[in-house]
Amino acid sequence: MLLVGWNKRVQRGFPGPGWKNTTQQIIMSVLNIDLSFRSHTCGELRPADVGEEVTLCGWVQYLRQDLFVIMRDFSGLAQILIPQDEDKMNLKTALCDLPPESVIRVKGTVRLRPDGQENKMPTGEIEVLAESVEILNVCRKLPFEIKDFVKKSESLRMQYRYLDLRSSQMQYNLRLRSQLVMKMREYLCNVHGFVDVETPTLFKRTPGGAKEFVVPSREPGRFYSLPQSPQQFKQLLMVAGIDRYFQLARCYRDEGSKPDRQPEFTQVDIEMSFVDQAGIRGLIEGLVQYSWPVEKDPVSTPFPCITYEKAMKDYGVDKPDTRFAMKLMDISKTFHNTEIEFLKDALNQPGGCIQAICIPDGAKHLKGKDHESLNFHSPDFHYFLPQRPLLGKLRLQCAELLEGSGVAVRDPSAFHFLWVVDFPLFLPKEEDPDQLESAHHPFTAPLPEDAHLLYSLPHKVRGQHYDLVLNGCEIGGGSIRIHKASDQQHVLETILKEDPSLLSHLLEALDSGAPPHGGIALGLDRFLSIIVGAPSIRDVIAFPKSFRGHDLMSRAPDFVSEDELKSYHIAVNWPYIKAHIC
Amino acid sequence: MLLVGWNKRVQRGFPGPGWKNTTQQIIMSVLNIDLSFRSHTCGELRPADVGEEVTLCGWVQYLRQDLFVIMRDFSGLAQILIPQDEDKMNLKTALCDLPPESVIRVKGTVRLRPDGQENKMPTGEIEVLAESVEILNVCRKLPFEIKDFVKKSESLRMQYRYLDLRSSQMQYNLRLRSQLVMKMREYLCNVHGFVDVETPTLFKRTPGGAKEFVVPSREPGRFYSLPQSPQQFKQLLMVAGIDRYFQLARCYRDEGSKPDRQPEFTQVDIEMSFVDQAGIRGLIEGLVQYSWPVEKDPVSTPFPCITYEKAMKDYGVDKPDTRFAMKLMDISKTFHNTEIEFLKDALNQPGGCIQAICIPDGAKHLKGKDHESLNFHSPDFHYFLPQRPLLGKLRLQCAELLEGSGVAVRDPSAFHFLWVVDFPLFLPKEEDPDQLESAHHPFTAPLPEDAHLLYSLPHKVRGQHYDLVLNGCEIGGGSIRIHKASDQQHVLETILKEDPSLLSHLLEALDSGAPPHGGIALGLDRFLSIIVGAPSIRDVIAFPKSFRGHDLMSRAPDFVSEDELKSYHIAVNWPYIKAHIC
Repeated sequence: MLLVGWNKRVQRGFPGPGWKNTTQQIIMSVLNIDLSFRSHTCGELRPADVGEEVTLCGWVQYLRQDLFVIMRDFSGLAQILIPQDEDKMNLKTALCDLPPESVIRVKGTVRLRPDGQENKMPTGEIEVLAESVEILNVCRKLPFEIKDFVKKSESLRMQYRYLDLRSSQMQYNLRLRSQLVMKMREYLCNVHGFVDVETPTLFKRTPGGAKEFVVPSREPGRFYSLPQSPQQFKQLLMVAGIDRYFQLARCYRDEGSKPDRQPEFTQVDIEMSFVDQAGIRGLIEGLVQYSWPVEKDPVSTPFPCITYEKAMKDYGVDKPDTRFAMKLMDISKTFHNTEIEFLKDALNQPGGCIQAICIPDGAKHLKGKDHESLNFHSPDFHYFLPQRPLLGKLRLQCAELLEGSGVAVRDPSAFHFLWVVDFPLFLPKEEDPDQLESAHHPFTAPLPEDAHLLYSLPHKVRGQHYDLVLNGCEIGGGSIRIHKASDQQHVLETILKEDPSLLSHLLEALDSGAPPHGGIALGLDRFLSIIVGAPSIRDVIAFPKSFRGHDLMSRAPDFVSEDELKSYHIAVNWPYIKAHIC
Repeated sequence: MLLVGWNKRVQRGFPGPGWKNTTQQIIMSVLNIDLSFRSHTCGELRPADVGEEVTLCGWVQYLRQDLFVIMRDFSGLAQILIPQDEDKMNLKTALCDLPPESVIRVKGTVRLRPDGQENKMPTGEIEVLAESVEILNVCRKLPFEIKDFVKKSESLRMQYRYLDLRSSQMQYNLRLRSQLVMKMREYLCNVHGFVDVETPTLFKRTPGGAKEFVVPSREPGRFYSLPQSPQQFKQLLMVAGIDRYFQLARCYRDEGSKPDRQPEFTQVDIEMSFVDQAGIRGLIEGLVQYSWPVEKDPVSTPFPCITYEKAMKDYGVDKPDTRFAMKLMDISKTFHNTEIEFLKDALNQPGGCIQAICIPDGAKHLKGKDHESLNFHSPDFHYFLPQRPLLGKLRLQCAELLEGSGVAVRDPSAFHFLWVVDFPLFLPKEEDPDQLESAHHPFTAPLPEDAHLLYSLPHKVRGQHYDLVLNGCEIGGGSIRIHKASDQQHVLETILKEDPSLLSHLLEALDSGAPPHGGIALGLDRFLSIIVGAPSIRDVIAFPKSFRGHDLMSRAPDFVSEDELKSYHIAVNWPYIKAHIC
């Protein structure tokens, strides 16, 4: 251990999410608090500390009976007893006038609380008799109280994010995020020899990359763009012989106003050489298991794996929530002699079938208005095509309705991981169904058994793509990549009708000794929000943007003077000017 | 250990820079190679493996005598013996026609090399007798050979970066970077309880922030900016009670064309509450010691610490290279009765003095042309003011000249860390010396003993700023911050004459129970380039930009169509249009 000389003592009760009891755990539970003004943190004091002289630093949570200050730091609360002696009256005066959330340093002695005054908080058996107090900063009147039960509007929370982050839930979320990411790094870097490589975020615009932010340069007309992922770089790093790459990559996506999307987000970005699908899946299962918070039930591996076809057949969606059954059932056979007109019509259509969802005790739980809401899709819902995605939505809606009427359908503490594989490599373009587009991206390799179809029946080719699904949300996706330039050029030029010269550097790289390789990217924000049960990814991001992409605290984005834009050779097209000219 | 079931065996000879022999070391030296196609890496094979069936994956480095393939992966080289049997001729034919840098998988058996054929490479005692070979990718003719001794131009290296990164030096640099950063994270997160928090890079433009890239939003006239550092966020996190924050932060600076600067770079960003200068300095000394590569001589702490005043007096610069002496000497006294006219003139000026640098054996080593180059600054160099910075440059120039003539002045394997402290808090503005500007930034707190001068003689105030210098380069800087809103407002409004409303969210935050806090940022790219002895930070960045800010591989920044700019309500001001109109 290299800790000698740094860590004078082991801190008891290290706060926040714990981890498995390994050597790492021991290192983690040691804090060198000699670096700071305090001798102890508020939350760590226990009866074993009775008699000790301590120095605490923190915030005034509240005063009680002019006798106690409840003091808070990141680790928890401690009760400070204000001495009532005549010669300490100045101390009492100073503290009792102090607004909540002011910052103080207290020196005092730990003692047991008198009989009957203990409570159940972690430091509830002791209190600190203050000997001296220093007021480090006085707090103004705040726009809301720092108490967990105080409800605040989303916009107020965002405007005063530095206050919102003081809540125990946000402290927990950010500390969990840090520790989970640290465990991921240990697993990838220390256990599996991955190399953490930073890739540029000022890059070249992808042709047609409508969701990419542009960044003007000082050369007239030339722009960088902020990439949506390091896809090209991670593949180039494999060509470069890095062998195993990972990065906690900042990615950018300009989607305008979409709820619960962020213009910048973080992905756990991974790429490996000389690997197949099973290798990547095994790696990720180990990653999740290794980094999983110890206070949750352990994750068992391998994760179940189903094909895209089966997912669509059983759940009507490519990211099924497998915490509950209620699978789609084909009951066409039961009705093959039916006289019921609309069922007969359905069966007579090409590929027509009759599907059902069996809701356990549905008749008992679902009321009249529920039936209405389930019928909302369209009066002639039954004839809609494709019928399965609609049924997939119905299945989720039924689960919500049942839960609304008090039936336990999905266990909120359960985490169901699922691999979905064997996606089609290409799909017909919505705007022109005779043309094909990539189901995921043009760099995914075909399944080996379908590879020969690439040159004859490309629409029949299944890709080596895999999605990782958790509780019905897609939290990751990746693929084995095309590593031969000729195949990549065929896909880009012949199948997708794109101009391969725009990716000439990638084609050249594949032709320069590219190893077989594949990878995956996990959406860290979404993954974390599911783990902590947060309704929005904003709850696991320190300073998120509003759903309109605004920073409500600093008021970004903001106006920039014409003069400041000159060096970038751009000018604003004000819409009203246009209107005026027209 | 959580490795059970994942790691089938311990890999010998884990390549790349090693680390101190802790538990971590053991974890790090274990690679689960079952994830990939290979059974072993090329560089790990030793006589102990003789008789083992191995599968290797890698690149054809070169062929020798139609008998051997020298095969390379990230871990090193292995010699493959091509069987000469009649029934294996197909194998020979396939390999002997294969261009260098093609990718192959070889199955074979490890055997000792025949007597006299061993060499000194790590795998030099063994070879692998090939049983089967699979050609995974054929390599085209490359623009340069992947051999360390082949000299390439900088622009060719950048254009084919994925080939350049195959060199052993670049592999070493990127792997060292990854491991050093991992150790830093372990130290901060696991040993000292720091919380890794990601902060936004799409932020509000700093008023007058001429070096900030702008990012147009979809709202007319509104722009995000890419911040030069997370300064505001790290302080807000302290107000939020995070207590200890760190981040490997991507930062942006648009400086146009400056050699050895990058438009995006990485800093190790740290902030702590309830801490003083000594606490931060101790933390950083421990950080450097903990993460220092084990193959270098260990770093001893504490680092020496000198004041700004002393640095300027002794070295004529605020980032002295202390690997050699040759300090500036004031020899005014010796000449106080001088008759030499120009010296007399100098002494008669207000504050005039005569300074010298004593060059050991200078007369012997410095030739006529050296004297000329030392006089290059100006014919009347001697009268220039301020004289000290010029002497500081002269001192470095003398060291270079001495080294050029073969004298050992600076030990290239020595690492001299130095703290420089007690900087002035404000400096006169260059364009208007009656006005003050921040020597570093407006958030630095004054030295406690100078705090009273803030309201009377601000130009006399020294700040609680500290710079970390390594071998004459500034690799980090930080400060204890102002944590009271009233002081911060006074600095912004009264001293710096800035509009405090532009930072109203920060002032409000300081007034909301801000704890005393301070921090530091280390320039990771520069730090690494000094450690590996690289001439440029481009040698420790995977995909750097050229000195004009271009990506020579993808040709970014690039033109974007008018149409694509429409959604951002901007248009390009083409200079030639202007010229035409004029």
